Amino acid sequence: MELWYTEKHTDTVDFSIKVKKHFYSEQSPFQHIDFFESEEFGTFFTLDGLMMVNEKDEFVYHDMITHVAMATNPDIKRVLVIGGGDGGTVRELTRYPHIEEIHMVEIDEMVVRACQSYLPITASKLDDPRVTLFFEDGLKFIHGKENVYDLILVDSTDPIGPGEGLFSEAFYTDCYTALSENGILINQHESPYYPSYAHEMKRSHTKIKKIFPISKVYQFHMPTYPSGHWLFGFASKKLDPVTDHKPEKWESFGLDTRYYNSDLHKACFALPTFVKRLLEE
Amino acid sequence: MELWYTEKHTDTVDFSIKVKKHFYSEQSPFQHIDFFESEEFGTFFTLDGLMMVNEKDEFVYHDMITHVAMATNPDIKRVLVIGGGDGGTVRELTRYPHIEEIHMVEIDEMVVRACQSYLPITASKLDDPRVTLFFEDGLKFIHGKENVYDLILVDSTDPIGPGEGLFSEAFYTDCYTALSENGILINQHESPYYPSYAHEMKRSHTKIKKIFPISKVYQFHMPTYPSGHWLFGFASKKLDPVTDHKPEKWESFGLDTRYYNSDLHKACFALPTFVKRLLEE
Repeated sequence: MELWYTEKHTDTVDFSIKVKKHFYSEQSPFQHIDFFESEEFGTFFTLDGLMMVNEKDEFVYHDMITHVAMATNPDIKRVLVIGGGDGGTVRELTRYPHIEEIHMVEIDEMVVRACQSYLPITASKLDDPRVTLFFEDGLKFIHGKENVYDLILVDSTDPIGPGEGLFSEAFYTDCYTALSENGILINQHESPYYPSYAHEMKRSHTKIKKIFPISKVYQFHMPTYPSGHWLFGFASKKLDPVTDHKPEKWESFGLDTRYYNSDLHKACFALPTFVKRLLEE
Repeated sequence: MELWYTEKHTDTVDFSIKVKKHFYSEQSPFQHIDFFESEEFGTFFTLDGLMMVNEKDEFVYHDMITHVAMATNPDIKRVLVIGGGDGGTVRELTRYPHIEEIHMVEIDEMVVRACQSYLPITASKLDDPRVTLFFEDGLKFIHGKENVYDLILVDSTDPIGPGEGLFSEAFYTDCYTALSENGILINQHESPYYPSYAHEMKRSHTKIKKIFPISKVYQFHMPTYPSGHWLFGFASKKLDPVTDHKPEKWESFGLDTRYYNSDLHKACFALPTFVKRLLEE
């Protein structure tokens, strides 16, 4: 017998992984959670059938969501992670000794508990003393907060299901208010390649651009996400990720990273022409 | 009935495209050639079952194989394309009025003729008066040639089957000899992600580094190739693609490109740390 997991990247494009074992399958109050064991990607889990995290390329995503902001403002002390139930984003943050407080707001406690059991590669630092977990709706959590965080990382699913509100203008406005003067917002920004993802990418960028004086998009290679061409948004009140980049300071932290490096920091903001055109539409 | 084309990116990872029509399937003296019509990618063709070119993302590959070299040495006049039977690389070259001569050596005439019939988006410029087609083995064609070309573009299949010799040290040495003083060699350099491709990437780089004083690798997003993370090699006798980059001169040509641009030129040489480490091994 062969067991294969298939994700539909579009209605007519499938990505399939041969599975050794499908060892967890539960319906939470918010979504369906499945864990698999595979040869190529090690352990991976899906939410509502979509690939979230796997042991092989999680380092790409978690490097890129965290270190670009940290090398733009190396004085960040208070961080909010919205989503990110696998814990990989928090893991990267805990590598900075000068970060004082990390709040993680994840709507679905079951995702966190399952990752603590089955995906220690990402979830192992959730018990860091600086980390507080809130199992709440990120939208409600952030509403009304003012000047509380230096960095907000929106590590969300796609804008369908529980992640939908995290792509709304009201939410981005609340993020702006919750950020300090040098505050930075990084958000999951979908992909430019397949039309449905490109549509969400454009919508997100249009909204953020209205609210933040600085709003850029950067790219990375994420082979297990649809098309492998994935984006984060970088929005801030004052700091520009390219002109305010502080490579020497960041390198003085001595972090060993497998994807991110100082050359790549500037380079990832150089987007292909077709992506720039889509974002300008 | 549904018809699906599947490429095995590894033994346990499949990429599948729903096909409207499988309208051409022939065995040439060298390989099996298949043409398909699909919703997401338009017309595409495969050699021995592997995706070569499709209407949706061919622009990425053909931009990146051509314009990086042309913006490093905008005086290139004599070009050799090895492989590239679909014609897309030649099409990009013909956009430069100052290029005087383009030799294309493709071992498999059937690929070229099929692309002329079914893939005019790439094959339409093969009748440019500056283009001469040679249906020969590229290895034999280049052997013994001295100081003939300013640019050699190796637009090959993977190093299995007819493309194998185009990844050999003897071939790279012949390329060096065939190049002029400012000569540049661009070669298909596989991918860093899945082990079998990463293995070929390392082998190719190790060989080229021995022969060319300047040997770099650059990356791009090619969603229909395994992992979507693809590389070209840039090797030359004198010119460095970053320090000798001539963006103003290249922009003066006024070419509209959908992937390549001057910012991306420098940026594509900034590789993720894991790729740099693999190349240094």
